Amino acid sequence: MELIEKLNWRYAAKSMSGKVVPEDKIERILEAARLAPTSSGLQPFEIFVVKNQGIKEQIRPVAWNQSVITESSHLLVFAAWDTYTADRINYMFDLTNKIRGFENEGWENYRQQLLSSYPQRDAEENFNHAAKQAYIALGTAMIAAAGEKVDSTPMEGFDADAVDKILGLREKGLRSAVLLPLGYRNEDEDWLVNLVKVRRPMDEIVTVIE
Amino acid sequence: MELIEKLNWRYAAKSMSGKVVPEDKIERILEAARLAPTSSGLQPFEIFVVKNQGIKEQIRPVAWNQSVITESSHLLVFAAWDTYTADRINYMFDLTNKIRGFENEGWENYRQQLLSSYPQRDAEENFNHAAKQAYIALGTAMIAAAGEKVDSTPMEGFDADAVDKILGLREKGLRSAVLLPLGYRNEDEDWLVNLVKVRRPMDEIVTVIE
Repeated sequence: MELIEKLNWRYAAKSMSGKVVPEDKIERILEAARLAPTSSGLQPFEIFVVKNQGIKEQIRPVAWNQSVITESSHLLVFAAWDTYTADRINYMFDLTNKIRGFENEGWENYRQQLLSSYPQRDAEENFNHAAKQAYIALGTAMIAAAGEKVDSTPMEGFDADAVDKILGLREKGLRSAVLLPLGYRNEDEDWLVNLVKVRRPMDEIVTVIE
Repeated sequence: MELIEKLNWRYAAKSMSGKVVPEDKIERILEAARLAPTSSGLQPFEIFVVKNQGIKEQIRPVAWNQSVITESSHLLVFAAWDTYTADRINYMFDLTNKIRGFENEGWENYRQQLLSSYPQRDAEENFNHAAKQAYIALGTAMIAAAGEKVDSTPMEGFDADAVDKILGLREKGLRSAVLLPLGYRNEDEDWLVNLVKVRRPMDEIVTVIE
């Protein structure tokens, strides 16, 4: 399925059937999210894959009681770093050197540039920056899901502190940024399934500067 | 090309050749960005497509003098709404009703919910929220570009106020969020082109809660 087709096929399912998504599909969706580009390659987030129905039931009431939380097969929780630290930055630069098998001077200078700016910034600014990177992976995961004919419903409407508590994220230096239930649409119950996708026309989104 | 292949093919080209990307490829990349999902479907951003070499030359010095700015064929500037206003929210809900040809009670209640919360929030919080949506479109555009065998180099390293001034964004209620030069890699000049892509292993990114 071509990308444009995938984007047209997908929509934010408002009701799911509870049917389980096969693990090989989940693996390809997660692999796409893992490969998504991020600023300086830091990948400043983790993904929690909630299969446990009891945990989904705990999350649903703190997520506007949206039924897809518990009707989903796998609930992805994108959790961004609560801040950038020297350890986190060094870890990724060291990993890069290890995998590539050598040090690159420009890359090492860039490491120092990040070390001299990111950890000193306000944690909230850093979390926002990290969360934006997680949104690239979120979008990538939604495209991957569509390619697998798996429905996905991105959700920002939840009490992040409550989700952090349920999953123990703060102790890990993480904060929940966005939820993505994965599953299969329940066509009989979903008011949105047959409605036309709405997007602003191209000339309202795009300005060409010749 | 499958999604995983596209994600593996792409990298952030550090040098481009100046070769022009055909307009049909640019159109498909922009169409993918236009179709990208956003929170409440608000699409709170615009994309400026800078083809003008003089404007690219103005932007380059305020973007760490990165050569790909001027070596790119098309420089995309993702500019997010500076805040959410009642007008902007109503516009999208009205457009939705017009395209679908009817009003939906749940959707109208949701409009009121947004109207009673978003415009009252701090503009900076709203801009950050809007910018995150732009990052979904950014990621989608990078995947689309890879599918067209077009290189793309996401860039956060620029003076946003200066770019806003060059493009006159503030007067339009917009703020530059991220840049995406599109073009073709210059293999002879790019230190990154032959280096292995580095990503954290799956078990460091993903935690499954059974």
